[in-house]
Amino acid sequence: MVSNPGARGSVELARQARLDARSGKLTGPTANLAPGHVQANLAILPRALAADFLHFCQRNPKPCPLLAMSEPGDPALPELGHDIDIRTDIPRYRVWKNGELVAEPTDVRDIWRDDLVSFLIGCSFSFEEAMLDNGLPVRHIEQGCNVPMYRTSIPTHAAGAFSGPLVVSMRPLKAADAIRAIQVTSRFPSVHGAPVHIGDPSLIGIADIGRPDYGDPVEIRAGEMPVFWACGVTPQSVVASVRPEFCITHAPGHMLVTDLVNSRMAVF
Amino acid sequence: MVSNPGARGSVELARQARLDARSGKLTGPTANLAPGHVQANLAILPRALAADFLHFCQRNPKPCPLLAMSEPGDPALPELGHDIDIRTDIPRYRVWKNGELVAEPTDVRDIWRDDLVSFLIGCSFSFEEAMLDNGLPVRHIEQGCNVPMYRTSIPTHAAGAFSGPLVVSMRPLKAADAIRAIQVTSRFPSVHGAPVHIGDPSLIGIADIGRPDYGDPVEIRAGEMPVFWACGVTPQSVVASVRPEFCITHAPGHMLVTDLVNSRMAVF
Repeated sequence: MVSNPGARGSVELARQARLDARSGKLTGPTANLAPGHVQANLAILPRALAADFLHFCQRNPKPCPLLAMSEPGDPALPELGHDIDIRTDIPRYRVWKNGELVAEPTDVRDIWRDDLVSFLIGCSFSFEEAMLDNGLPVRHIEQGCNVPMYRTSIPTHAAGAFSGPLVVSMRPLKAADAIRAIQVTSRFPSVHGAPVHIGDPSLIGIADIGRPDYGDPVEIRAGEMPVFWACGVTPQSVVASVRPEFCITHAPGHMLVTDLVNSRMAVF
Repeated sequence: MVSNPGARGSVELARQARLDARSGKLTGPTANLAPGHVQANLAILPRALAADFLHFCQRNPKPCPLLAMSEPGDPALPELGHDIDIRTDIPRYRVWKNGELVAEPTDVRDIWRDDLVSFLIGCSFSFEEAMLDNGLPVRHIEQGCNVPMYRTSIPTHAAGAFSGPLVVSMRPLKAADAIRAIQVTSRFPSVHGAPVHIGDPSLIGIADIGRPDYGDPVEIRAGEMPVFWACGVTPQSVVASVRPEFCITHAPGHMLVTDLVNSRMAVF
């Protein structure tokens, strides 16, 4: 779960990552693949739930920044890249039935249905790249582990069956770096944007910062404060709580590599 | 020391405020006069010190955002407004000799010299107006007192004889409001811009947040964090420490009301 601040790949690297996932050559996490390119979280839902989930994303743009939504049954996502087939172009999927994880395939063509709608949601890799480009430390990348994530006492805005608590990711920073990180990440509203909280974790219902609900704990050093961003795990946890009869997501860290460029996501 | 988020005056109100100061009709603080217009701090120094002070401002743009510098001996400031006479257009001045306050006149024409250079420096009124416009609370305005200010352990960048600690102003905010305040005030680099510190005061050498070095203490409520901005008192305290043989400043709160508009100071 790391992003690479170094060389920026051409769009060919993004397309190659998808082709490698399609052919079965790539089955692992996508961190560091096609640096500079936007990666996306995936949720695939039956059409009967799609309108409500779209409404949920519209109401909760910080945890659910929707980059693209497909037509029902159509595996293409032309806004995100040339020739995408969402049934094959992610290295590993998770298939859920009635809220239970039933399989982790590398291809979902055999279970595809004409009523399935794909939602592609922005991912923190994009703003972490901007932080690293600004010389800001990203602790979980330094430590080579997953970002720590926490369920909070902040409710999301419900839509239809979808509701539940906001999940946040945390990166510890010195105060001056936290201020700069707010400036840098505010430029990227379509990939979670500015933090939602800084400082005292108990104010957002986090009892023990050393015990994240998802991911790994990271060190918080003297003089640092925890900085919390809305997290793309929120829609996954919200979808899981609805226990839809059928649903497909990406496996954690196994994202869709898109043709979009991170730097082009900046609003100013 | 309050700014008015309400009706925005025309430039005529700014000019009238200066004419009232010039005629002696206005001798009090300028808060709430000509809402929407930029107000400025003043330091007038002999030419022999001007180059170093300009360099100090250039090296320390956050506490010393220089809006305009006059020609030696020239009381006009055409960048800041039509027909300004800096010798008369501020309601009350402070005159310093060898670092000692010797007078607080309402007019300095009788002590004007051909070697005097005026420095006009941005003021927090501008970004406070933007905060209020964004629905953010400004505690000292709510409490009807002066903003609390503190000498810190953060050094300024010295230039010639000018050096000394950064002085900061503090406004307490809830975390989500602090994040928004960072976004809002980042747009105004020419009037102090983004905060320089958030959270633990001891990290910047403030021993007791309840005892400011200048201004008045304000309440910090449960769930709020102190947010610190570089303060225009910094150049005044730095100038005072140099003890120039002659120097004129504005009396606290008695600012130059300029023709510039706060909203036009925003960089994006």
